[in-house]
Amino acid sequence: MNHPTLERIDNADKIKAASLSELDMLAADIRSFLIEHISKTGGHLASNLGVVELTIALHNVLNFPQDQVVFDVGHQAYTHKILTGRRDRFDTLRQFQGLSGFPKPHESDCDAFGTGHSSTSISAAVGLATAKKLRGEAGHVVAVIGDGAMTGGLAYEGLNNITEELDNLIIVLNDNELSISKNVGSLAEYLAKLTSKPAYFRIKDATKKVVLHIPLIGRGLYRVIHDTKSVFKTLLVGSNFFEDLGITYFGPIDGHDIKAVSKVLGRAMTIGKPALIHLKTVKGKGYVYAENDPTAFHGIASFDMDTGEHPSNLTDSFSKVFGDSLYALAQQDERICAITAAMTEGVSLCRFAAAMPQRFFDVGIAEGHAVTFAAGLAKAGMRPCFAVYSSFLQRAYDEIVHDVALQNLPVTFLVDRAGIVGEDGETHQGIFDVSYLTSIPNMTVYSPYTYTQLKALLGEMGRCEGPTAIRIPRGGMEGRFADCYEIGDYAVYGREDASAAVVTYGRMTAQALDACEELEKSGIHTKVISLLKIKPIDFDALFCALAHCRKVVFLEESERIGGIAQQLAAELLSRRFAGRYTILALNDTYVEQGKPQQLLRVYGISAQDVVRAIAEEDAGEREEET
Amino acid sequence: MNHPTLERIDNADKIKAASLSELDMLAADIRSFLIEHISKTGGHLASNLGVVELTIALHNVLNFPQDQVVFDVGHQAYTHKILTGRRDRFDTLRQFQGLSGFPKPHESDCDAFGTGHSSTSISAAVGLATAKKLRGEAGHVVAVIGDGAMTGGLAYEGLNNITEELDNLIIVLNDNELSISKNVGSLAEYLAKLTSKPAYFRIKDATKKVVLHIPLIGRGLYRVIHDTKSVFKTLLVGSNFFEDLGITYFGPIDGHDIKAVSKVLGRAMTIGKPALIHLKTVKGKGYVYAENDPTAFHGIASFDMDTGEHPSNLTDSFSKVFGDSLYALAQQDERICAITAAMTEGVSLCRFAAAMPQRFFDVGIAEGHAVTFAAGLAKAGMRPCFAVYSSFLQRAYDEIVHDVALQNLPVTFLVDRAGIVGEDGETHQGIFDVSYLTSIPNMTVYSPYTYTQLKALLGEMGRCEGPTAIRIPRGGMEGRFADCYEIGDYAVYGREDASAAVVTYGRMTAQALDACEELEKSGIHTKVISLLKIKPIDFDALFCALAHCRKVVFLEESERIGGIAQQLAAELLSRRFAGRYTILALNDTYVEQGKPQQLLRVYGISAQDVVRAIAEEDAGEREEET
Repeated sequence: MNHPTLERIDNADKIKAASLSELDMLAADIRSFLIEHISKTGGHLASNLGVVELTIALHNVLNFPQDQVVFDVGHQAYTHKILTGRRDRFDTLRQFQGLSGFPKPHESDCDAFGTGHSSTSISAAVGLATAKKLRGEAGHVVAVIGDGAMTGGLAYEGLNNITEELDNLIIVLNDNELSISKNVGSLAEYLAKLTSKPAYFRIKDATKKVVLHIPLIGRGLYRVIHDTKSVFKTLLVGSNFFEDLGITYFGPIDGHDIKAVSKVLGRAMTIGKPALIHLKTVKGKGYVYAENDPTAFHGIASFDMDTGEHPSNLTDSFSKVFGDSLYALAQQDERICAITAAMTEGVSLCRFAAAMPQRFFDVGIAEGHAVTFAAGLAKAGMRPCFAVYSSFLQRAYDEIVHDVALQNLPVTFLVDRAGIVGEDGETHQGIFDVSYLTSIPNMTVYSPYTYTQLKALLGEMGRCEGPTAIRIPRGGMEGRFADCYEIGDYAVYGREDASAAVVTYGRMTAQALDACEELEKSGIHTKVISLLKIKPIDFDALFCALAHCRKVVFLEESERIGGIAQQLAAELLSRRFAGRYTILALNDTYVEQGKPQQLLRVYGISAQDVVRAIAEEDAGEREEET
Repeated sequence: MNHPTLERIDNADKIKAASLSELDMLAADIRSFLIEHISKTGGHLASNLGVVELTIALHNVLNFPQDQVVFDVGHQAYTHKILTGRRDRFDTLRQFQGLSGFPKPHESDCDAFGTGHSSTSISAAVGLATAKKLRGEAGHVVAVIGDGAMTGGLAYEGLNNITEELDNLIIVLNDNELSISKNVGSLAEYLAKLTSKPAYFRIKDATKKVVLHIPLIGRGLYRVIHDTKSVFKTLLVGSNFFEDLGITYFGPIDGHDIKAVSKVLGRAMTIGKPALIHLKTVKGKGYVYAENDPTAFHGIASFDMDTGEHPSNLTDSFSKVFGDSLYALAQQDERICAITAAMTEGVSLCRFAAAMPQRFFDVGIAEGHAVTFAAGLAKAGMRPCFAVYSSFLQRAYDEIVHDVALQNLPVTFLVDRAGIVGEDGETHQGIFDVSYLTSIPNMTVYSPYTYTQLKALLGEMGRCEGPTAIRIPRGGMEGRFADCYEIGDYAVYGREDASAAVVTYGRMTAQALDACEELEKSGIHTKVISLLKIKPIDFDALFCALAHCRKVVFLEESERIGGIAQQLAAELLSRRFAGRYTILALNDTYVEQGKPQQLLRVYGISAQDVVRAIAEEDAGEREEET
């Protein structure tokens, strides 16, 4: 498809020179460009469609890179990328060494700060803006943050540290989910007019009278949405919350009106105080299928552009098996509760939520609270399960150490997306949980690689006496192993008398088995030992299984430092193991974006790498022997 | 000293039966008891003196353990301990296996939830209260939280998750630091009267008129404190913030008025909604020296009860050397910034703060923000140093991984109180930072054990190109080693040809040297290798230094899992080291309270343990040889 306006107007200078009607045409072109490309590559569609005009307005007013934007979470930066010289790389979006789906300073000096996790933008922008002040540098710093990200405590910590001197700081609040009713909306628009007119500032500064009425109106709004439970909704409609912090509030404003957004941005830059601009946008805007189902089109694989048809999520996955199992268990055991931090669909808890709403808790993007809340539930006799992505659980490390594990409370952590996750790249890989969870006392950690194991482990929830983490990968079961063995610390595959062994856990068992089969062809007998329980480990039993092996390869898709392989090494050394020991793990590195299978090869932890490690050693040994 | 009223009235039943004047006498007795005991044992004085009446009122109204209290941070639970059967154990306060300075459920079923770190109480209380509802159990859950703890994002996440159904939840806000001016105070008291009178509820429920005026008053208050930058001050005086969340607000009330506090607590329990009671208290109340200098008497060693004289902090310590060095460096290098999370005194940044206020940032108890803010500063060319206690930095793990290290930004982490800290017990030991920091890519970690090393490392700040952590212990330099050697990866002490070696880092070097000296007496030549840089480690060089050793002991005051010893084990194994290797580290355990020297012995990581490990091996080897 052609995008004639985008061909012509594709950077900030040209945007500044264009007419408003041209900018509207540009928005339409960008939208069409996004739908066309994401339908092929997959990616974050709905969030990016919601900020097309907002981003054009930013480019219309700001001068990059002197002015800087921090996109919170970062899954809404596609338009910004298109307008900063990266349009021709969209075919490579989210592919290995292709264009990232998130802001990356190494891609462009117009990406001021890398993001990926939620609620960081205000703190980072305060840092950037403070540095500008200290260094006497010109330019504004804009944090673009969604309402969802405002449920994270870090966003509040950031707000609390904005000082009045930061007149180079602007927060753009991209409000796309709050369903404030029409009535409230019109009052709010009245507020917006009152607030954003230049006259307002004169009145405010001169007589301080007009503002005094705002809280009254805010209170009125409050009455209407009284039943909602979000701090944030209250803050928004009250509007004086931000003002009380010394942050001048503009809004709400239609975030799809390029002229209005440009105008208010321009004003916000000249008021001599930090400002917050409250924009109302529609997630998925301009693509009917995404508008109707923004959740499905949030992060999506390829889809049919014309019909909106996309692969359903009905295929089996570890998440789905978890969700179904927990649902069934909770039907039997009234102590079981499910907690999610804004990931109900992602961790397959929809069915649980619908059937047992009293015991289901979506706490917002607030992993810290989720964990301490779970500790409270567990202390009082419940059996909570917090289902969370590995990389997001990092946000609650101290709460696990301090609130759950120290008190040895029976909280189950369903650590989803453990290991290499893929296309979302560095910020989303689940490669740290093995080191940060296994070093916590009292913690038991499992890494199942079959659905049967997962179900059996969940079945133990009612009997657990301390914290338990169950790590599951993204997607479904891989490999051809029999799906039948019972819970135990580990399983052995292959010939008892094999002289080589691959020790591994979780999804990597499939890689190990593939390697084993390959090696068998060359006459090298190898056994695979798959650990189900990776903490604590029964090293006596494991040592017995390894006793006759002259070479052992440990394979894991986690950081080498703090990984399980190093623990086994220490044990083997103290037991004076005389064979060769090779660790295949992530060598103190973040993991780029790409397909998981591809990344395993790139980072040297695939079946082929196991084959090579053992075959080389085999060759080495033969040489030594001769 | 006698405490006749306390002898007579020492539990909740007797408090409920006592007259008000008796309760006032009880408060005086408890205060005297606290001053007398803490002057001998040391402990948290000022915070505990501030909540004597508040705690008596809790016991006057609540029924433990059916009703539950969660003390935020927990350093204000002494009166609660006195009144729940632990008075006779106060001689053992903060000693090994003695009474804890924090709430501990294993001490009493009246300690509902263990605390130690800040801002956890609301989340935990929401969990406890929710469980009560789900289980159909009676009783209220009270979170007692200070205003300082409200600067932590976790507290907001907790507030945001309070639902209106939790009518069994009460937050007691212990406001002892906000210096709201007299004028504001009187308006606030008017508000309080309006709010806490029973009539208020009737009016509110019936006509909804009275409340509408509150925001107007709040706005007025706002004008007065307009220059303050704390979100929290605004929220407090606005008062409608909590109400808007569906939490009924009572206050502010004099927290030293047992009758008033008891009355409002009783009311709060019957309103059928979650409630927040705002109490104003004086930190250090009733002891003039503590009232005048609550910071010095916050956590204090033994002192002279009559004169208030206490050991000054002027003796050298790693913190002080750090503070002085950073001050001097920042005078030369305008890029250097200092950040603290409410620990200016603890990390010795007072001088920096006074001299260079523009580059000094106290962000409140908000470690997450501190780290992401530092990342922003560093991204824009500054050289920030975040000085923070090891156990509190746990709160910012994800921000280190995601905002600093992934972008490889030059942020310096001065990790104070690394290793065993002592009397504060499990929640404050710095025993996890080695595992959680060294497993993060791009991170460089140092563990100096002399002031000279520390100064030299800080001197490199301007040249660092990525994140650097410098771990320092609580207190001062120990041991008799020469204070002279240059920055390098490690230092070797002892005979080059020694057949045994102790590898260690940081403060434990002193233990290793002591052991070495002791072993020398038995004719066992041992060398000590002290690692300065514990990540990345130059294993080639280290292996050379160990090549001739038949036995190696690795000594560290960190968790064994994820520790440095295991990394070295993996290297030694892959290099086919044939000697014996013993790890002396913390064996997957939390560390109790006690004196550090004592704890080293209890947990098997003292000089004596090194001697034993090497001597035993020596004996073992001789046996094998014969």
